[in-house]
Amino acid sequence: MTMTQKAQLMRIEQFIELSEGNWRSMRSGHSLAFQQFEQITSHIEISRLDLKEPDVVKLLEQSNTSQYKPVAPFRMSWEADSDWNMIEETENTSGSCVLIPVPSSIKKGLIVRSLGYAEAIQAISDYVLLSDGTLILKTNYENSIAEERIWFVSENVRCRSTVIKTSSGKGIIQTSFASEVRKINPKT
Amino acid sequence: MTMTQKAQLMRIEQFIELSEGNWRSMRSGHSLAFQQFEQITSHIEISRLDLKEPDVVKLLEQSNTSQYKPVAPFRMSWEADSDWNMIEETENTSGSCVLIPVPSSIKKGLIVRSLGYAEAIQAISDYVLLSDGTLILKTNYENSIAEERIWFVSENVRCRSTVIKTSSGKGIIQTSFASEVRKINPKT
Repeated sequence: MTMTQKAQLMRIEQFIELSEGNWRSMRSGHSLAFQQFEQITSHIEISRLDLKEPDVVKLLEQSNTSQYKPVAPFRMSWEADSDWNMIEETENTSGSCVLIPVPSSIKKGLIVRSLGYAEAIQAISDYVLLSDGTLILKTNYENSIAEERIWFVSENVRCRSTVIKTSSGKGIIQTSFASEVRKINPKT
Repeated sequence: MTMTQKAQLMRIEQFIELSEGNWRSMRSGHSLAFQQFEQITSHIEISRLDLKEPDVVKLLEQSNTSQYKPVAPFRMSWEADSDWNMIEETENTSGSCVLIPVPSSIKKGLIVRSLGYAEAIQAISDYVLLSDGTLILKTNYENSIAEERIWFVSENVRCRSTVIKTSSGKGIIQTSFASEVRKINPKT
């Protein structure tokens, strides 16, 4: 099967399977109004969880998504490299969250997350998988809307872009882009 | 019509129409092997050309694409801000190229370009428009393959990501990401 055929058949479960593991991330942020750049390197670990795990059960209970069946829950943990010059004081330098996809059809659904991206609160994202295998997540927060796009460039390289809009959807506050390379030896 | 409906109906002509104008760009580059960041701000101008323009006629003659009808040719010019510290010596700080889309179906075709992105030579890219309006360009150069993605976040903000692979397609050399904001007053 070619990469294009694989992408067309991709479901969220496969996307998460491909994402499991340890990644080294280079991320650049663009503050559009001030034309400021920000850059950070970090380590990311993505690991599958069991549907019976207490954290998963609890998060699902709170999410009010019981009309559909959850699949492939996972934990994402991150830790920034300790080059403090590069890090904004407000940035979370390490953390962890639980994410649970709840498909409503083959290519669409919700992802329940214990922590959001734009705001550090529990959140529910809409997801859609495009025909080329790109995963798009949209999340409405209290004060902002985030659109994340994640796609595989190869088996071991993912790209992830994020756009943060004002809650009206009209103003663009920030964009960011991460290149994530799989670590073959997770200890490095 | 909603933005989603517009995106689904989008053809390359509309995409270029939305792109016309003056843009201020923030671009970040990631060299994956060396974990190096690069950043640059620049000005971009995109302007439509006539199909009878000599540069357009000449480029089409050389391109061997006469089985399909070209549409919406345009010129893209760029000029980096003169903060030399930020610029790699090898970087082209200003330039201009002619691009001519040649659709083979509603959502697919070729784009003939007088200058490539990864290598400064005449090139032909394959393009496809995804269902959400994202334009994907793939270009095979002599020593590399480039995949560019361009999408509108709002009427006045475009994002553009680029991945440069080795010519075998297996190694990823560089990624980059640009946030482009339309200049309402082009003189700033």
